[in-house]
Amino acid sequence: MEEFKNIELDDSKSEYLYIQLYRIIKRKIIDNELKPNSKLPSVRKFSEILNINKTTIVKAYKMLEDGNYIYKKVGSGTYIYDISTNEEYIDSKYIEYSRNKINLGSGIPSEELFPVEDFKESINYVLDKYKGKAFGYQDSKGDESLRKMIFKIFIKEKMDITTNQIQIISGAQQGIDLVSKALLNAGDFVMTESPTYTGAIAIFKSRGCQFTTINIDYSGIDFEEFERKVIQYRPKLFFTMPNFQNPTGYTYSEEEKLKVLELSKKYSFYIVEDDYSSELNFSNIKIKTLKELDKNERVIYIKSFSKIFLPGLRLGYLIVPEVLEKKISSAKHSTDIYTSGLIQKTFEVFLKDEKWAKQFDLIYEMFKQKYYIATDVFKNHLPDNVKLNKPNGGVNFWLELNENVDTNKLYDYLLKKNIIIAPGNVFYLNNKKSNSIRISVASVEKDKLREYLIVFCDSLKNYLQNERETKKIQVL
Amino acid sequence: MEEFKNIELDDSKSEYLYIQLYRIIKRKIIDNELKPNSKLPSVRKFSEILNINKTTIVKAYKMLEDGNYIYKKVGSGTYIYDISTNEEYIDSKYIEYSRNKINLGSGIPSEELFPVEDFKESINYVLDKYKGKAFGYQDSKGDESLRKMIFKIFIKEKMDITTNQIQIISGAQQGIDLVSKALLNAGDFVMTESPTYTGAIAIFKSRGCQFTTINIDYSGIDFEEFERKVIQYRPKLFFTMPNFQNPTGYTYSEEEKLKVLELSKKYSFYIVEDDYSSELNFSNIKIKTLKELDKNERVIYIKSFSKIFLPGLRLGYLIVPEVLEKKISSAKHSTDIYTSGLIQKTFEVFLKDEKWAKQFDLIYEMFKQKYYIATDVFKNHLPDNVKLNKPNGGVNFWLELNENVDTNKLYDYLLKKNIIIAPGNVFYLNNKKSNSIRISVASVEKDKLREYLIVFCDSLKNYLQNERETKKIQVL
Repeated sequence: MEEFKNIELDDSKSEYLYIQLYRIIKRKIIDNELKPNSKLPSVRKFSEILNINKTTIVKAYKMLEDGNYIYKKVGSGTYIYDISTNEEYIDSKYIEYSRNKINLGSGIPSEELFPVEDFKESINYVLDKYKGKAFGYQDSKGDESLRKMIFKIFIKEKMDITTNQIQIISGAQQGIDLVSKALLNAGDFVMTESPTYTGAIAIFKSRGCQFTTINIDYSGIDFEEFERKVIQYRPKLFFTMPNFQNPTGYTYSEEEKLKVLELSKKYSFYIVEDDYSSELNFSNIKIKTLKELDKNERVIYIKSFSKIFLPGLRLGYLIVPEVLEKKISSAKHSTDIYTSGLIQKTFEVFLKDEKWAKQFDLIYEMFKQKYYIATDVFKNHLPDNVKLNKPNGGVNFWLELNENVDTNKLYDYLLKKNIIIAPGNVFYLNNKKSNSIRISVASVEKDKLREYLIVFCDSLKNYLQNERETKKIQVL
Repeated sequence: MEEFKNIELDDSKSEYLYIQLYRIIKRKIIDNELKPNSKLPSVRKFSEILNINKTTIVKAYKMLEDGNYIYKKVGSGTYIYDISTNEEYIDSKYIEYSRNKINLGSGIPSEELFPVEDFKESINYVLDKYKGKAFGYQDSKGDESLRKMIFKIFIKEKMDITTNQIQIISGAQQGIDLVSKALLNAGDFVMTESPTYTGAIAIFKSRGCQFTTINIDYSGIDFEEFERKVIQYRPKLFFTMPNFQNPTGYTYSEEEKLKVLELSKKYSFYIVEDDYSSELNFSNIKIKTLKELDKNERVIYIKSFSKIFLPGLRLGYLIVPEVLEKKISSAKHSTDIYTSGLIQKTFEVFLKDEKWAKQFDLIYEMFKQKYYIATDVFKNHLPDNVKLNKPNGGVNFWLELNENVDTNKLYDYLLKKNIIIAPGNVFYLNNKKSNSIRISVASVEKDKLREYLIVFCDSLKNYLQNERETKKIQVL
């Protein structure tokens, strides 16, 4: 309790004592002076230490709890929250740490790939041509000529939908948010893959939803379990990334895709397909999206232009069943009214002038080379007791370690060696322990990838070696 | 029932019959062939007319209901929804209709005022200086140097907060959405002004909230009622526009502002202050925002740069109490990860180069002139039995008509004369009947404003005159 005795509150300040106390403790948590999961004094004890009213402590604790800095265990006391494991911050953390580090943790491509000159040309064209109108009020659904252009370039040949079913969004994350607002209420069940993209989980949680999950496993989807869970929980929707799933890289077979569609029809749930990277197919096997196979308007399809091909643009689209068009555009309206008209118009010009096609080829070719570098390095350098299920494309590789490996400790060990990975637990509901890790080739420069991946494999080997020896010593 | 007999479904198509039927009815509703609030045949009757299975009708009706095209009245039947009164579409409707019309309905300034050349200069500077980095990953909270710039220009002299409390948002609407996600759960009570901005209501409804309201009236706020309702409903937050309130134009006195703050402290609710237009003060009375007066971190302050001064930019900021910083930035992360880095950087440069100051002066001066034109026209041309409570600034004027005037009929009448107004009911919870209308000077060109407002006043006079005569005839 020593660390609490030197807290000084100033009665003469206009600021309330409880706010002063709140600020001091918060600062200690952020500065890691108060360690995660360590215990705070009880209200009675603390009020004695500081010689102040109990109410002041209660109020300060309430503020800290509201801000997710501390948590209470019934009958046990008040503890410091581990702010570093907050899953929503994982991705930004990886970016933040990544200066001068080997970043195999982030799935977001580096910004150097952005076609600045082409984009600049398009944006200046738009500003000259449309002037202030580029900033005029937009339909919540999105600019009609952009939607027509998207239809022409990406959809016409593949899917039997109308331009009206296209909803412009400010990135895939917003897509998931809009679908949640349109379809989900507190208490509803959502089915997700396990592991999955936790940014989606965060949204569903924020709607007050409950979860049921289906395991993603390279031996295939267990549809008996799938159907049993659907019957038991009656989920409103199934959130899936059927091609190069994040984080596992798994791709559903066409048979599995049809089975999911069949079940969605039979049990009337929607499928939310986050098509994160289906273009990055480096195998000879043709793959289709669920939306292409959907004959019954069960799939809500989410596509971001900015995740892989134009990182940072914050633009994408949804394809929504006709029956949901209005609900989704209402949700967009109440979320942020409309997506920047300037960005929409600029992207339309970018598409029309075939700058997109050029950028697409560039990025595809680069990721293809990265994919071959990674599969080659893993084949030759991975330790024996690490299993890679080779994906057919995408940017992620999912490595399974021995069951007894603590991947969070591994994460800390590698971080000290300036290597960032994503430990498996961040992709599970409630941060469940996992003996897998995700290696992403998205943000490392292509020319450095081979060297970096070899360094990673060697460090992994060292860690596993050390761990075995430590264990032996413990046994002795 | 004649209109239903000629419906033809095609059994040989791959499309299900119920989807065919759904599409046909939907088309008829959109084309206004089926009128709002008219009745659809019962399931039994309809299945006889079309000679198809009842289940097909049930399924088609279900889809139409999901899409808000039809609604059921228990014990009475199924009716066509009036899609034109959907409050979320009102604003976009006013814009849509406004080509070649006198648009006194929309509160959004016309796009001609956008400083395209200055903006173009800033955006090109950013693209040249930062290249791809302008598109790099951003903190969910927003670009730090933009936040510092906002602090320096807008906040330093006025409020005792830190840069950390500033959260960048893609417009005010998103601000309300983030606050809702951070603070509200299904079933929670929200207190709003009545009338109010219905875009906020839509968000709170979407969170499953319940409502209690406080009347906005130029005779002052009834704080007895306010406190009674707070005690009864224990709202989590109070949504308010204390300066030049939308739609009424009412400004709280400083005493009233302090009273609201006092109650928020006493009963621990947050105040969400949508500072829509406090800069547009054309009186000699200095006004303050609630946030400036807030000593207890009870106010969440929402500011959009794009509503008045840079229409269409989609950028703004929140000031959040320290205790909510993390919750709000988490909500931003799960909503759309971050606001376009390009727009953030460009706006920072726009601020730094004092282009903002220039634009501000231009817009302020223009709205001031509009305000004086409007007050002058209303003074001399409003019919006797129409009451204007003169606001001290802003862009909206709230006209009270006789109690028995149906402002929706008035809306239709004026629309036929190419004049668009906003009937009062759209600003009330559940579209409550209102005998007031909102006249906004935002989107009409300054040089045409006098003429247009006189035309409006004359048309209003005619309408009221005709109405009185019709009533007389009915009495005779």
